[in-house]
Amino acid sequence: MRFFEDLQVGQRRELGSYMFTAEEIKRFAQQFDPQRFHLDEEEGRNSLFGGLAASGWHVGSVCMKLIVADNQRLAEIARSRGEAIAVGGPSPGFRELRWLKPVLAGDTITFSSEIDSLRASASRPQWGILQARNTGTNQRGELVFSVLASAFVPRRNNG
Amino acid sequence: MRFFEDLQVGQRRELGSYMFTAEEIKRFAQQFDPQRFHLDEEEGRNSLFGGLAASGWHVGSVCMKLIVADNQRLAEIARSRGEAIAVGGPSPGFRELRWLKPVLAGDTITFSSEIDSLRASASRPQWGILQARNTGTNQRGELVFSVLASAFVPRRNNG
Repeated sequence: MRFFEDLQVGQRRELGSYMFTAEEIKRFAQQFDPQRFHLDEEEGRNSLFGGLAASGWHVGSVCMKLIVADNQRLAEIARSRGEAIAVGGPSPGFRELRWLKPVLAGDTITFSSEIDSLRASASRPQWGILQARNTGTNQRGELVFSVLASAFVPRRNNG
Repeated sequence: MRFFEDLQVGQRRELGSYMFTAEEIKRFAQQFDPQRFHLDEEEGRNSLFGGLAASGWHVGSVCMKLIVADNQRLAEIARSRGEAIAVGGPSPGFRELRWLKPVLAGDTITFSSEIDSLRASASRPQWGILQARNTGTNQRGELVFSVLASAFVPRRNNG
C-alpha cells in the first residue's frame, strides 16, 4: 500500500502467482460453494468447466490474499527505511467482476493490478479513492479473472 | 435451482440468515484477507469500520454458500416429487458489487435474491442466462451487501 499522493493512473503492480491445487479447491468449495463441479474431478469434467474448477469466490479471495501480501511487503520496505507506512482502508465495492475462463486444479494464476482512476474522497478528506483493474492470467497467458475494484487509500497529508 | 422456463423477472428467494462470529471472521481473514481490521477487535474499532469487520470476500462467499444450500433444498424437493432436477451452471461474472456497510462480529445478515433479467444463451442453446440482484441486510434492516450476479441456468427442454 502506498499513499494517495504516491499513486498515478496506469501504475501496475505484479502481485505474484498462485497454484490452485485440487485439495484447496475442494476445501474452499466445501465451506462456501459446494457445487459438484467444485468438489469432484469427474463432475467437473462433465460440466461446462471441463475439469475440477475453483469457485469464483475462491479466485477472488486469492487475488485479495496476494494484494494484502504485497501491501505488507511494501509496508516492510517503508518500515525498514524509517518512512511513514500507509495503511489501506475498506473497499466500497467492485464493478465488472468477470470470471472469463475456468481456473482448474493445477492451474497457476498470475495476478496483477493496474490503477484505473484516482480521486479525493469528498466526505473523508484524509482518504483518496483508488479504482484498480485487478486481473488473473493462467499459465497459458489466458485472462481468467478481471475486476474493477475500489478502495480507500490514505492521504499522506491527511487532507 | 429451477429451470429457466420456471423463472420470471421479479421472483424473489429468501436465502436465510447467517451470523458472522468473531472467530469465523478472523479465520477467513487469516486465509485470504489478513488486514488488521479483519483480524483484531481493537484494530477494527480504530478503523473506518468501527469494529471487527468481515472481509468483503467472506460476506460474498457466505451469500454464495446460502444460494447453494437453497438450490440443494429445491433439488431435494424436486427429487422427492420425482421431478427433473435443475443443476445450475457457472457464473460468467458480477456487476455492481457493493459493500454498503460493515459486517461486524455478531451481526446476522439475511440474504435474498431477486431475478432482474432472463435471456436465452445465444451460444449455448441448452442454457439460459439469469441476472439476479443478491442482497444482504443486517439485523437493523440496513442493506450491507448488494451484487448483480449472472449465472447459467439449465433449460428444461435443452433448447
